[in-house]
Amino acid sequence: MISVLLIGKGNVSTHLYDAFLKADNITVTQISSRKLENIPSADVTIIAVSDDAIATVSSKIKNSFVVHTSGACAIDELKNNNRKGVFYMLQTFSKDKEVSFKEVPFCLEAENKKDENLLTEVAKSIGEKIYTINSEQRKALHVAAVFVNNFTNHLFKIGNDICKENNVPFKILETLIDETALKIKTLSPEKAQTGPAVRNDQKTIKNHLNLLNKKQQEIYTIITKSIQNGN
Amino acid sequence: MISVLLIGKGNVSTHLYDAFLKADNITVTQISSRKLENIPSADVTIIAVSDDAIATVSSKIKNSFVVHTSGACAIDELKNNNRKGVFYMLQTFSKDKEVSFKEVPFCLEAENKKDENLLTEVAKSIGEKIYTINSEQRKALHVAAVFVNNFTNHLFKIGNDICKENNVPFKILETLIDETALKIKTLSPEKAQTGPAVRNDQKTIKNHLNLLNKKQQEIYTIITKSIQNGN
Repeated sequence: MISVLLIGKGNVSTHLYDAFLKADNITVTQISSRKLENIPSADVTIIAVSDDAIATVSSKIKNSFVVHTSGACAIDELKNNNRKGVFYMLQTFSKDKEVSFKEVPFCLEAENKKDENLLTEVAKSIGEKIYTINSEQRKALHVAAVFVNNFTNHLFKIGNDICKENNVPFKILETLIDETALKIKTLSPEKAQTGPAVRNDQKTIKNHLNLLNKKQQEIYTIITKSIQNGN
Repeated sequence: MISVLLIGKGNVSTHLYDAFLKADNITVTQISSRKLENIPSADVTIIAVSDDAIATVSSKIKNSFVVHTSGACAIDELKNNNRKGVFYMLQTFSKDKEVSFKEVPFCLEAENKKDENLLTEVAKSIGEKIYTINSEQRKALHVAAVFVNNFTNHLFKIGNDICKENNVPFKILETLIDETALKIKTLSPEKAQTGPAVRNDQKTIKNHLNLLNKKQQEIYTIITKSIQNGN
Protein backbone atom coordinates (compact mmCIF):
# COMPACT_ATOMS: atom_id res chain seq x y z
CA MET A 1 0.00 0.00 0.00
CA ILE A 2 1.18 3.51 -0.86
CA SER A 3 -0.25 6.42 1.10
CA VAL A 4 -0.90 9.55 -0.95
CA LEU A 5 -1.74 12.95 0.50
CA LEU A 6 -3.31 15.47 -1.88
CA ILE A 7 -3.00 19.13 -0.99
CA GLY A 8 -5.42 21.45 -2.77
CA LYS A 9 -9.12 21.36 -3.51
CA GLY A 10 -9.06 22.35 -7.19
CA ASN A 11 -9.90 20.37 -10.34
CA VAL A 12 -6.63 18.45 -10.58
CA SER A 13 -6.60 17.46 -6.94
CA THR A 14 -10.26 16.44 -6.87
CA HIS A 15 -10.06 14.37 -10.07
CA LEU A 16 -6.95 12.63 -8.70
CA TYR A 17 -8.67 11.98 -5.38
CA ASP A 18 -11.64 10.32 -7.09
CA ALA A 19 -9.31 8.16 -9.18
CA PHE A 20 -7.02 7.12 -6.30
CA LEU A 21 -10.05 6.10 -4.21
CA LYS A 22 -10.69 3.36 -6.77
CA ALA A 23 -7.06 2.19 -6.95
CA ASP A 24 -6.26 -1.04 -5.07
CA ASN A 25 -2.78 -0.16 -3.86
CA ILE A 26 -3.35 3.47 -2.80
CA THR A 27 -4.78 5.03 0.34
CA VAL A 28 -5.58 8.65 -0.28
CA THR A 29 -6.35 11.75 1.81
CA GLN A 30 -7.17 15.22 0.47
CA ILE A 31 -6.74 18.45 2.44
CA SER A 32 -7.06 22.12 1.61
CA SER A 33 -3.89 24.15 1.07
CA ARG A 34 -5.30 26.67 3.55
CA LYS A 35 -5.23 24.19 6.43
CA LEU A 36 -1.61 23.20 6.75
CA GLU A 37 -1.39 23.13 10.58
CA ASN A 38 -1.87 19.37 10.96
CA ILE A 39 -0.52 17.67 7.91
CA PRO A 40 -0.99 13.88 7.87
CA SER A 41 2.12 11.92 6.95
CA ALA A 42 2.21 10.08 3.61
CA ASP A 43 4.59 8.22 1.29
CA VAL A 44 3.87 10.76 -1.45
CA THR A 45 2.53 14.27 -0.85
CA ILE A 46 1.12 15.78 -4.04
CA ILE A 47 0.58 19.53 -3.97
CA ALA A 48 -1.90 20.48 -6.67
CA VAL A 49 -2.11 24.24 -6.24
CA SER A 50 -1.60 27.23 -8.54
CA ASP A 51 1.99 27.75 -9.77
CA ASP A 52 2.45 30.85 -7.64
CA ALA A 53 1.54 29.00 -4.44
CA ILE A 54 3.93 26.05 -4.91
CA ALA A 55 6.89 27.65 -3.09
CA THR A 56 4.89 28.82 -0.07
CA VAL A 57 2.82 25.68 0.34
CA SER A 58 5.77 23.32 -0.08
CA SER A 59 7.87 25.26 2.43
CA LYS A 60 5.35 24.35 5.11
CA ILE A 61 5.43 20.60 4.53
CA LYS A 62 7.68 18.36 6.60
CA ASN A 63 6.64 15.10 4.87
CA SER A 64 9.43 12.98 3.41
CA PHE A 65 8.54 13.25 -0.31
CA VAL A 66 6.73 16.20 -1.86
CA VAL A 67 5.81 16.60 -5.54
CA HIS A 68 4.02 19.30 -7.52
CA THR A 69 1.75 18.88 -10.58
CA SER A 70 2.78 21.90 -12.65
CA GLY A 71 3.97 21.76 -16.25
CA ALA A 72 5.46 25.25 -16.05
CA CYS A 73 7.50 24.89 -12.84
CA ALA A 74 10.88 23.24 -12.36
CA ILE A 75 11.42 20.70 -9.60
CA ASP A 76 13.45 23.19 -7.56
CA GLU A 77 10.50 25.53 -7.15
CA LEU A 78 9.56 23.16 -4.34
CA LYS A 79 10.84 24.60 -1.07
CA ASN A 80 10.36 21.63 1.27
CA ASN A 81 13.48 20.33 3.02
CA ASN A 82 13.12 16.67 2.06
CA ARG A 83 12.83 14.74 -1.21
CA LYS A 84 11.23 16.43 -4.25
CA GLY A 85 9.51 15.36 -7.43
CA VAL A 86 7.00 16.26 -10.15
CA PHE A 87 3.76 14.50 -11.02
CA TYR A 88 2.59 16.40 -14.11
CA MET A 89 -0.40 15.29 -16.12
CA LEU A 90 -0.47 16.75 -19.61
CA GLN A 91 -4.20 17.31 -19.92
CA THR A 92 -6.79 20.03 -19.47
CA PHE A 93 -9.03 19.29 -16.53
CA SER A 94 -12.52 20.71 -16.44
CA LYS A 95 -14.58 20.73 -13.29
CA ASP A 96 -17.63 18.90 -14.57
CA LYS A 97 -16.02 16.60 -17.07
CA GLU A 98 -14.90 13.15 -16.00
CA VAL A 99 -11.24 12.43 -16.69
CA SER A 100 -10.20 9.18 -18.33
CA PHE A 101 -6.81 8.78 -16.64
CA LYS A 102 -6.02 5.83 -18.89
CA GLU A 103 -5.58 8.38 -21.71
CA VAL A 104 -3.68 10.98 -19.71
CA PRO A 105 0.13 11.14 -20.13
CA PHE A 106 1.87 11.21 -16.73
CA CYS A 107 5.19 13.08 -16.88
CA LEU A 108 7.21 12.14 -13.82
CA GLU A 109 10.40 13.54 -12.35
CA ALA A 110 12.28 12.63 -9.17
CA GLU A 111 15.72 13.14 -7.67
CA ASN A 112 16.63 9.46 -7.63
CA LYS A 113 15.63 6.15 -9.18
CA LYS A 114 13.82 4.89 -6.08
CA ASP A 115 11.51 7.92 -5.94
CA GLU A 116 10.99 7.70 -9.70
CA ASN A 117 9.84 4.09 -9.23
CA LEU A 118 7.54 5.14 -6.42
CA LEU A 119 5.91 7.86 -8.58
CA THR A 120 5.64 5.37 -11.44
CA GLU A 121 3.79 2.96 -9.18
CA VAL A 122 1.42 5.72 -8.07
CA ALA A 123 0.80 6.80 -11.69
CA LYS A 124 0.29 3.21 -12.84
CA SER A 125 -2.41 2.71 -10.22
CA ILE A 126 -4.67 5.03 -12.24
CA GLY A 127 -2.97 5.53 -15.64
CA GLU A 128 -1.22 3.77 -18.48
CA LYS A 129 0.86 6.39 -20.30
CA ILE A 130 3.85 7.00 -18.07
CA TYR A 131 6.90 9.08 -19.07
CA THR A 132 10.03 10.16 -17.22
CA ILE A 133 10.57 13.81 -18.08
CA ASN A 134 13.12 16.18 -16.54
CA SER A 135 12.48 19.86 -15.81
CA GLU A 136 14.04 21.09 -19.05
CA GLN A 137 12.00 18.66 -21.14
CA ARG A 138 8.84 19.50 -19.24
CA LYS A 139 9.33 23.21 -20.00
CA ALA A 140 9.57 22.39 -23.71
CA LEU A 141 6.53 20.14 -23.51
CA HIS A 142 4.58 22.90 -21.82
CA VAL A 143 5.28 25.44 -24.56
CA ALA A 144 4.62 22.80 -27.27
CA ALA A 145 1.28 22.15 -25.55
CA VAL A 146 0.43 25.85 -25.84
CA PHE A 147 0.90 25.63 -29.61
CA VAL A 148 -1.05 22.39 -30.16
CA ASN A 149 -3.82 23.12 -27.64
CA ASN A 150 -4.30 26.81 -26.75
CA PHE A 151 -3.25 28.25 -30.12
CA THR A 152 -5.03 25.55 -32.12
CA ASN A 153 -8.19 26.34 -30.19
CA HIS A 154 -7.75 30.00 -31.13
CA LEU A 155 -7.56 29.02 -34.81
CA PHE A 156 -10.84 27.15 -34.27
CA LYS A 157 -12.22 30.37 -32.83
CA ILE A 158 -11.19 32.33 -35.93
CA GLY A 159 -12.72 29.61 -38.13
CA ASN A 160 -15.90 29.87 -36.09
CA ASP A 161 -15.93 33.69 -36.45
CA ILE A 162 -15.55 33.45 -40.24
CA CYS A 163 -18.42 30.93 -40.38
CA LYS A 164 -20.66 33.09 -38.21
CA GLU A 165 -20.00 36.21 -40.30
CA ASN A 166 -20.96 34.29 -43.44
CA ASN A 167 -23.91 32.27 -42.14
CA VAL A 168 -22.26 28.89 -42.44
CA PRO A 169 -22.65 26.31 -39.65
CA PHE A 170 -19.21 25.76 -38.00
CA LYS A 171 -20.35 22.16 -37.52
CA ILE A 172 -19.49 21.47 -41.18
CA LEU A 173 -15.82 21.77 -40.20
CA GLU A 174 -15.94 19.13 -37.44
CA THR A 175 -14.97 16.18 -39.63
CA LEU A 176 -12.01 18.10 -41.04
CA ILE A 177 -10.89 19.06 -37.54
CA ASP A 178 -11.06 15.42 -36.44
CA GLU A 179 -9.16 14.34 -39.53
CA THR A 180 -6.45 16.95 -38.87
CA ALA A 181 -5.86 15.55 -35.38
CA LEU A 182 -6.02 11.96 -36.59
CA LYS A 183 -3.65 12.40 -39.52
CA ILE A 184 -0.57 13.23 -37.45
CA LYS A 185 -0.80 9.88 -35.67
CA THR A 186 0.39 8.23 -38.87
CA LEU A 187 2.14 11.09 -40.71
CA SER A 188 4.60 13.68 -39.39
CA PRO A 189 2.99 17.16 -39.33
CA GLU A 190 5.49 18.17 -41.99
CA LYS A 191 4.26 15.46 -44.36
CA ALA A 192 0.63 16.07 -43.44
CA GLN A 193 0.79 19.72 -44.51
CA THR A 194 -1.64 20.63 -47.31
CA GLY A 195 -3.26 23.84 -48.53
CA PRO A 196 -2.54 26.97 -50.57
CA ALA A 197 0.50 28.02 -48.49
CA VAL A 198 2.51 24.86 -49.08
CA ARG A 199 1.34 24.73 -52.73
CA ASN A 200 2.25 28.42 -53.04
CA ASP A 201 -1.15 29.01 -54.64
CA GLN A 202 -0.99 32.82 -54.80
CA LYS A 203 -4.43 33.24 -56.36
CA THR A 204 -6.22 31.41 -53.55
CA ILE A 205 -4.10 33.14 -50.89
CA LYS A 206 -5.10 36.52 -52.34
CA ASN A 207 -8.78 35.52 -52.44
CA HIS A 208 -8.59 34.38 -48.83
CA LEU A 209 -6.97 37.59 -47.63
CA ASN A 210 -9.75 39.60 -49.31
CA LEU A 211 -12.29 37.81 -47.17
CA LEU A 212 -10.59 38.43 -43.83
CA ASN A 213 -10.53 41.34 -41.42
CA LYS A 214 -7.23 43.03 -40.58
CA LYS A 215 -6.42 40.95 -37.51
CA GLN A 216 -7.25 37.71 -39.28
CA GLN A 217 -5.13 38.79 -42.25
CA GLU A 218 -2.17 39.34 -39.96
CA ILE A 219 -2.36 35.78 -38.60
CA TYR A 220 -3.07 34.33 -42.07
CA THR A 221 -0.02 36.06 -43.52
CA ILE A 222 2.41 35.13 -40.77
CA ILE A 223 1.43 31.45 -40.68
CA THR A 224 1.41 31.21 -44.47
CA LYS A 225 4.94 32.66 -44.52
CA SER A 226 6.05 30.30 -41.78
CA ILE A 227 4.69 27.27 -43.70
CA GLN A 228 6.44 28.43 -46.86
CA ASN A 229 9.75 28.99 -45.07
CA GLY A 230 9.53 25.59 -43.42
CA ASN A 231 9.82 27.18 -39.95
CA MET B 1 -31.10 5.36 -61.67
CA ILE B 2 -28.93 8.44 -61.95
CA SER B 3 -26.01 8.37 -64.37
CA VAL B 4 -22.87 10.11 -63.16
CA LEU B 5 -19.84 10.91 -65.30
CA LEU B 6 -16.61 11.67 -63.47
CA ILE B 7 -14.00 13.68 -65.33
CA GLY B 8 -10.49 13.49 -63.91
CA LYS B 9 -8.26 10.70 -62.63
CA GLY B 10 -7.02 12.30 -59.40
CA ASN B 11 -7.72 11.38 -55.76
CA VAL B 12 -11.14 13.00 -55.48
CA SER B 13 -12.42 11.50 -58.71
CA THR B 14 -11.09 8.03 -57.97
CA HIS B 15 -12.44 7.92 -54.41
CA LEU B 16 -15.83 9.08 -55.71
CA TYR B 17 -15.77 6.45 -58.45
CA ASP B 18 -15.13 3.65 -55.95
CA ALA B 19 -17.94 4.89 -53.71
CA PHE B 20 -20.50 5.37 -56.53
CA LEU B 21 -19.78 1.85 -57.80
CA LYS B 22 -21.26 0.54 -54.54
CA ALA B 23 -24.32 2.84 -54.59
CA ASP B 24 -27.61 1.21 -55.65
CA ASN B 25 -29.10 4.13 -57.54
CA ILE B 26 -26.04 5.35 -59.42
CA THR B 27 -24.34 4.23 -62.62
CA VAL B 28 -20.91 5.73 -62.87
CA THR B 29 -18.25 6.24 -65.56
CA GLN B 30 -14.84 7.83 -65.09
CA ILE B 31 -12.76 9.39 -67.87
CA SER B 32 -9.55 11.37 -68.01
CA SER B 33 -9.74 15.14 -68.50
CA ARG B 34 -7.21 14.72 -71.30
CA LYS B 35 -9.60 12.65 -73.40
CA LEU B 36 -12.56 14.88 -73.99
CA GLU B 37 -13.23 13.97 -77.63
CA ASN B 38 -15.99 11.45 -76.95
CA ILE B 39 -17.76 12.44 -73.78
CA PRO B 40 -20.49 10.03 -72.67
CA SER B 41 -23.76 11.68 -71.74
CA ALA B 42 -24.87 11.63 -68.10
CA ASP B 43 -27.45 13.14 -65.73
CA VAL B 44 -24.65 14.69 -63.69
CA THR B 45 -21.15 15.38 -64.99
CA ILE B 46 -18.69 15.95 -62.13
CA ILE B 47 -15.40 17.54 -63.12
CA ALA B 48 -12.83 16.81 -60.43
CA VAL B 49 -9.77 18.56 -61.80
CA SER B 50 -7.39 21.23 -60.46
CA ASP B 51 -8.93 24.68 -59.94
CA ASP B 52 -7.01 26.17 -62.86
CA ALA B 53 -8.37 23.58 -65.29
CA ILE B 54 -12.07 23.99 -64.41
CA ALA B 55 -12.77 26.72 -66.99
CA THR B 56 -11.05 24.96 -69.90
CA VAL B 57 -12.39 21.49 -69.15
CA SER B 58 -15.95 22.67 -68.55
CA SER B 59 -15.98 24.71 -71.78
CA LYS B 60 -15.55 21.48 -73.74
CA ILE B 61 -18.50 19.67 -72.19
CA LYS B 62 -21.89 19.67 -73.89
CA ASN B 63 -23.65 17.54 -71.25
CA SER B 64 -26.80 19.01 -69.71
CA PHE B 65 -25.58 19.44 -66.10
CA VAL B 66 -21.95 20.04 -65.14
CA VAL B 67 -20.62 20.53 -61.59
CA HIS B 68 -17.15 21.10 -60.17
CA THR B 69 -15.76 19.90 -56.82
CA SER B 70 -13.69 22.92 -55.78
CA GLY B 71 -14.02 24.76 -52.48
CA ALA B 72 -12.16 27.79 -53.82
CA CYS B 73 -14.08 28.34 -57.07
CA ALA B 74 -17.45 30.01 -57.58
CA ILE B 75 -20.15 28.29 -59.61
CA ASP B 76 -19.62 30.71 -62.50
CA GLU B 77 -16.07 29.54 -63.09
CA LEU B 78 -17.77 26.74 -65.00
CA LYS B 79 -17.80 27.66 -68.71
CA ASN B 80 -20.18 25.03 -70.06
CA ASN B 81 -23.28 26.32 -71.84
CA ASN B 82 -25.86 24.31 -69.92
CA ARG B 83 -26.80 23.91 -66.23
CA LYS B 84 -24.13 24.39 -63.56
CA GLY B 85 -23.55 23.31 -60.00
CA VAL B 86 -21.01 22.54 -57.29
CA PHE B 87 -20.37 19.23 -55.54
CA TYR B 88 -17.78 20.18 -52.92
CA MET B 89 -16.63 17.73 -50.29
CA LEU B 90 -14.96 19.41 -47.34
CA GLN B 91 -12.28 16.85 -46.65
CA THR B 92 -8.64 16.15 -47.40
CA PHE B 93 -8.29 13.17 -49.71
CA SER B 94 -5.12 11.14 -49.66
CA LYS B 95 -4.29 8.67 -52.35
CA ASP B 96 -3.78 5.58 -50.24
CA LYS B 97 -6.24 6.30 -47.48
CA GLU B 98 -9.79 5.02 -47.75
CA VAL B 99 -12.43 7.72 -47.43
CA SER B 100 -15.42 7.23 -45.15
CA PHE B 101 -17.97 9.25 -47.14
CA LYS B 102 -20.48 8.88 -44.31
CA GLU B 103 -18.35 11.36 -42.36
CA VAL B 104 -17.65 13.76 -45.24
CA PRO B 105 -19.71 16.98 -45.43
CA PHE B 106 -21.15 17.49 -48.93
CA CYS B 107 -21.60 21.17 -49.75
CA LEU B 108 -23.93 21.44 -52.72
CA GLU B 109 -24.89 24.34 -54.96
CA ALA B 110 -27.15 24.47 -58.01
CA GLU B 111 -28.97 27.09 -60.07
CA ASN B 112 -32.43 25.78 -59.27
CA LYS B 113 -34.27 23.60 -56.77
CA LYS B 114 -34.61 20.66 -59.15
CA ASP B 115 -30.86 20.45 -59.74
CA GLU B 116 -30.25 20.91 -56.03
CA ASN B 117 -32.48 17.91 -55.36
CA LEU B 118 -30.65 15.89 -57.99
CA LEU B 119 -27.27 16.67 -56.41
CA THR B 120 -28.71 15.86 -52.98
CA GLU B 121 -29.82 12.47 -54.24
CA VAL B 122 -26.37 11.80 -55.68
CA ALA B 123 -24.67 12.87 -52.42
CA LYS B 124 -27.07 10.82 -50.30
CA SER B 125 -26.23 7.70 -52.27
CA ILE B 126 -22.77 7.70 -50.63
CA GLY B 127 -22.93 10.25 -47.79
CA GLU B 128 -25.00 11.45 -44.86
CA LYS B 129 -23.91 15.01 -44.11
CA ILE B 130 -25.48 17.14 -46.83
CA TYR B 131 -25.49 20.95 -46.85
CA THR B 132 -26.73 23.53 -49.35
CA ILE B 133 -24.02 26.17 -49.59
CA ASN B 134 -23.86 29.07 -52.02
CA SER B 135 -20.65 30.36 -53.62
CA GLU B 136 -20.15 33.14 -51.07
CA GLN B 137 -20.62 30.77 -48.14
CA ARG B 138 -18.32 28.21 -49.73
CA LYS B 139 -15.57 30.81 -50.06
CA ALA B 140 -15.87 31.56 -46.35
CA LEU B 141 -15.90 27.86 -45.51
CA HIS B 142 -12.77 27.37 -47.58
CA VAL B 143 -10.80 30.03 -45.75
CA ALA B 144 -12.13 28.81 -42.38
CA ALA B 145 -10.91 25.34 -43.35
CA VAL B 146 -7.43 26.75 -43.95
CA PHE B 147 -7.37 28.01 -40.37
CA VAL B 148 -8.71 24.86 -38.70
CA ASN B 149 -6.85 22.38 -40.92
CA ASN B 150 -3.74 23.76 -42.69
CA PHE B 151 -2.76 26.28 -40.01
CA THR B 152 -3.57 23.93 -37.15
CA ASN B 153 -1.36 21.34 -38.76
CA HIS B 154 1.43 23.93 -38.91
CA LEU B 155 1.05 24.53 -35.16
CA PHE B 156 1.41 20.76 -34.71
CA LYS B 157 4.60 21.03 -36.76
CA ILE B 158 5.98 23.74 -34.48
CA GLY B 159 5.02 21.64 -31.44
CA ASN B 160 6.83 18.70 -33.02
CA ASP B 161 9.93 20.84 -33.68
CA ILE B 162 10.04 22.03 -30.07
CA CYS B 163 9.74 18.43 -28.87
CA LYS B 164 12.49 17.23 -31.21
CA GLU B 165 14.86 20.01 -30.14
CA ASN B 166 14.34 19.04 -26.52
CA ASN B 167 14.29 15.26 -26.81
CA VAL B 168 10.68 14.81 -25.84
CA PRO B 169 8.46 12.36 -27.75
CA PHE B 170 5.76 14.34 -29.64
CA LYS B 171 3.51 11.36 -28.98
CA ILE B 172 2.97 12.65 -25.42
CA LEU B 173 0.89 15.46 -26.93
CA GLU B 174 -1.51 13.20 -28.84
CA THR B 175 -4.11 12.94 -26.08
CA LEU B 176 -4.14 16.71 -25.67
CA ILE B 177 -4.54 17.20 -29.43
CA ASP B 178 -7.47 14.78 -29.48
CA GLU B 179 -9.02 16.54 -26.50
CA THR B 180 -8.64 19.93 -28.20
CA ALA B 181 -10.59 18.71 -31.23
CA LEU B 182 -13.18 16.94 -29.09
CA LYS B 183 -13.83 19.84 -26.75
CA ILE B 184 -15.26 22.20 -29.37
CA LYS B 185 -18.05 19.72 -30.14
CA THR B 186 -19.63 20.62 -26.83
CA LEU B 187 -18.13 24.06 -26.07
CA SER B 188 -17.71 27.08 -28.36
CA PRO B 189 -14.00 27.67 -29.13
CA GLU B 190 -14.30 30.93 -27.21
CA LYS B 191 -15.39 29.12 -24.06
CA ALA B 192 -12.91 26.31 -24.60
CA GLN B 193 -9.94 28.70 -24.56
CA THR B 194 -7.40 28.01 -21.79
CA GLY B 195 -3.71 28.78 -21.26
CA PRO B 196 -1.37 31.61 -20.26
CA ALA B 197 -2.62 34.05 -22.93
CA VAL B 198 -6.25 34.09 -21.79
CA ARG B 199 -5.15 34.06 -18.12
CA ASN B 200 -2.71 36.87 -18.95
CA ASP B 201 -0.01 34.91 -17.10
CA GLN B 202 2.94 37.16 -18.00
CA LYS B 203 5.52 35.09 -16.15
CA THR B 204 4.74 31.91 -18.09
CA ILE B 205 4.50 33.82 -21.39
CA LYS B 206 7.98 35.25 -20.77
CA ASN B 207 9.38 31.82 -19.92
CA HIS B 208 7.85 30.37 -23.06
CA LEU B 209 9.28 33.10 -25.30
CA ASN B 210 12.75 32.43 -23.86
CA LEU B 211 12.55 28.85 -25.06
CA LEU B 212 11.56 29.65 -28.65
CA ASN B 213 13.50 30.65 -31.74
CA LYS B 214 12.77 33.97 -33.45
CA LYS B 215 10.21 32.66 -35.94
CA GLN B 216 8.37 30.70 -33.26
CA GLN B 217 8.39 33.78 -30.99
CA GLU B 218 6.76 35.82 -33.73
CA ILE B 219 3.86 33.37 -34.04
CA TYR B 220 3.61 32.92 -30.27
CA THR B 221 3.38 36.68 -29.76
CA ILE B 222 0.83 37.39 -32.47
CA ILE B 223 -1.53 34.57 -31.44
CA THR B 224 -1.18 35.43 -27.75
CA LYS B 225 -2.11 39.04 -28.56
CA SER B 226 -5.02 37.89 -30.70
CA ILE B 227 -6.36 35.69 -27.88
CA GLN B 228 -6.04 38.55 -25.42
CA ASN B 229 -7.80 41.01 -27.73
CA GLY B 230 -10.60 38.55 -28.36
CA ASN B 231 -9.97 38.74 -32.16
